[in-house]
Amino acid sequence: MRELFEQVKVQSPLVHNITNYVTVNDCANVILAAGGSPLMADDEEEVADIVSISKALYINVGTLNRRTIESMKIAGKRANELGIPVILDPVGMGASRLRNESVNALLETIRFSVIKGNMTEIRAIDQNCRTLSGVDAERSDQITSDTLDDSIVLAKGVAKRFSSVVVITGATDIVTDGERVRTITNGDPMMSKITGTGCMTGSLIGTFVAVDANRPFDAATIAVSMMGLAGEKAAELVVERQEGTSSMKRYLIDQILRIDEQVWKAGAKIENQA
Amino acid sequence: MRELFEQVKVQSPLVHNITNYVTVNDCANVILAAGGSPLMADDEEEVADIVSISKALYINVGTLNRRTIESMKIAGKRANELGIPVILDPVGMGASRLRNESVNALLETIRFSVIKGNMTEIRAIDQNCRTLSGVDAERSDQITSDTLDDSIVLAKGVAKRFSSVVVITGATDIVTDGERVRTITNGDPMMSKITGTGCMTGSLIGTFVAVDANRPFDAATIAVSMMGLAGEKAAELVVERQEGTSSMKRYLIDQILRIDEQVWKAGAKIENQA
Amino acid sequence: MRELFEQVKVQSPLVHNITNYVTVNDCANVILAAGGSPLMADDEEEVADIVSISKALYINVGTLNRRTIESMKIAGKRANELGIPVILDPVGMGASRLRNESVNALLETIRFSVIKGNMTEIRAIDQNCRTLSGVDAERSDQITSDTLDDSIVLAKGVAKRFSSVVVITGATDIVTDGERVRTITNGDPMMSKITGTGCMTGSLIGTFVAVDANRPFDAATIAVSMMGLAGEKAAELVVERQEGTSSMKRYLIDQILRIDEQVWKAGAKIENQA
Repeated sequence: MRELFEQVKVQSPLVHNITNYVTVNDCANVILAAGGSPLMADDEEEVADIVSISKALYINVGTLNRRTIESMKIAGKRANELGIPVILDPVGMGASRLRNESVNALLETIRFSVIKGNMTEIRAIDQNCRTLSGVDAERSDQITSDTLDDSIVLAKGVAKRFSSVVVITGATDIVTDGERVRTITNGDPMMSKITGTGCMTGSLIGTFVAVDANRPFDAATIAVSMMGLAGEKAAELVVERQEGTSSMKRYLIDQILRIDEQVWKAGAKIENQA
Repeated sequence: MRELFEQVKVQSPLVHNITNYVTVNDCANVILAAGGSPLMADDEEEVADIVSISKALYINVGTLNRRTIESMKIAGKRANELGIPVILDPVGMGASRLRNESVNALLETIRFSVIKGNMTEIRAIDQNCRTLSGVDAERSDQITSDTLDDSIVLAKGVAKRFSSVVVITGATDIVTDGERVRTITNGDPMMSKITGTGCMTGSLIGTFVAVDANRPFDAATIAVSMMGLAGEKAAELVVERQEGTSSMKRYLIDQILRIDEQVWKAGAKIENQA
Repeated sequence: MRELFEQVKVQSPLVHNITNYVTVNDCANVILAAGGSPLMADDEEEVADIVSISKALYINVGTLNRRTIESMKIAGKRANELGIPVILDPVGMGASRLRNESVNALLETIRFSVIKGNMTEIRAIDQNCRTLSGVDAERSDQITSDTLDDSIVLAKGVAKRFSSVVVITGATDIVTDGERVRTITNGDPMMSKITGTGCMTGSLIGTFVAVDANRPFDAATIAVSMMGLAGEKAAELVVERQEGTSSMKRYLIDQILRIDEQVWKAGAKIENQA
């Protein structure tokens, strides 16, 4: 997967983000740290123009509203027409009727290269159900060795249904294109104590998919493991220095700049599932 | 007040925030650091759903607009119906006619468990007047030993009028439910050199009120003193290391994670006023 | 230019920002670090009130939408009526038809004290053309010794046409009022690896223009060189400590607090062009 790393540096691809206002700054900085060029734009009248000059589109419904939902649809359709890969981050899927309806409408009108969420969100997509957990996974929705097999079945099902790569993030992350499955065990529990690790992962997937639209399975694998590895290294520093979660976020983004292909290769914990 | 600390960790309550886009990331990270689970959502069509699964609602008018004002009203009313505590942060009250009208409309339609502002904002609520100071307190509006008694009278009056706990933040903070009064002298002047300390305090009040809707007076006391204590510890580090305000913000949020009940008890400077 | 430094500390001027939601927090913190008082407000119904109590208005179209474009026009007109200086940051000019039309409309209806952009943006204003580069300058648009003369001609032309001070940011920055020209060579390449250095520079220009509306040429010179100097000092620390871009941002804002008139004088690299 060396080529994807190299190409991000060479191409510095423009990544169009329609995302929430909570973690948008961190998303932009992570894209820059990885070597891409972020652009945030969400007005209905300009998103078709913006996506046309971009190499990937990242859609995150974290703070969706009626105006931006329309923009997501317009941008996604245009991206599909132009063969530009689109990533969906169904933040908080299940938490409100509006989120469910909007995500379903997006899934009906747009073909996504990658759909990434936590277990609660991906299950809510699968079952079109309402949940009680906000934007974090429900406590009963942790991926453990007991539930891993079932989780993989779920992920593969959603992947096949939408012809997408599906990523379920958790202590063990699952990446699947419906046939092949990889699990990733990088990461640190402290990552769940800062907002935006999920969004940053989504933007990073966008950055790697941007340089080769035909390899979303590899791009998602790199992005998810890279974010987890950055989290491990950041958490080490925080513990060593007896700091807290704001320092955690700082080190996490710092590490994205410092993890090149070699560091990634040495630290990534990726397993192909039979 | 040990139970409130414990319960935040045990329950990890969902806190719904309708807040400004300037400091929203810091608010989310402070809620997480304290042990809660933040959710930001502001569309009219989903806020009733979101607040229904939440344990507290924090309303901050910092960057209000016509769309979000409606959302605040809808969410607040629904929270009142369900007995979910609501916190009002009248940022910039007095700075524009729209802010005054909007805050007044909120105060008329919603019952707030806690109203928190600086002296300029709380006075503007009391007198429904316009001011010249933006979102920071006017220089003449500092709480000093000379003006403390008058400030307490003002705070109690507003508290009684709206059946709310009222918090006036300043070098000396005042917390009152209209009868009981506490003053808090934690904090550091450097806190006024970073944006968002007020908003973070508001979100933190939301986090503690969320675990016991019947104790807004104690919840506000904890949150305000905890934020001040975090500011003291952060400022020490900044001075020691000759750093600046971005480091100040980082250490402040770091400290929220590190201040448990024992650290808080040892450092909180709270006085019951006769 | 000592007076401008002094006056920012003395007056702590209120700076009204209508800006994007990506870097807004950093803009607010930079204004505070420099000694000003930031206020972010973008609703059509309140911006005229807000700008009336402010000393400068900073307009940044980074995440413009139909609603905020109207607010920019209303606020800008009101500022012009009251003699309050207005700064334009045409972020992403050229990247969409909407951006071009909106920026042109702003330039037609409002008189700007300062227009600040990268080479791609300022050229797009000059030629009213569309570009392919998002919000960063195109790679062919770097200001080098070969292209400096042409860049100055471009900047002077735009300055004369709009009776504004024009700033083109790059490895060499250009500041001109159409007659006088200064070049500034402070800065570090790592600044382009974090989002918001351009926006922070714009907010900082606003802070210095706010204390003397008649000296936009000096105010822009100070702000641009101060930001570059902060970047140099920040990059040194990052390299020394083997950190990354999130640390870079932290040190950059820290330095804004620490650069007083003496430090600035010792480090600023400003040249008057014949």
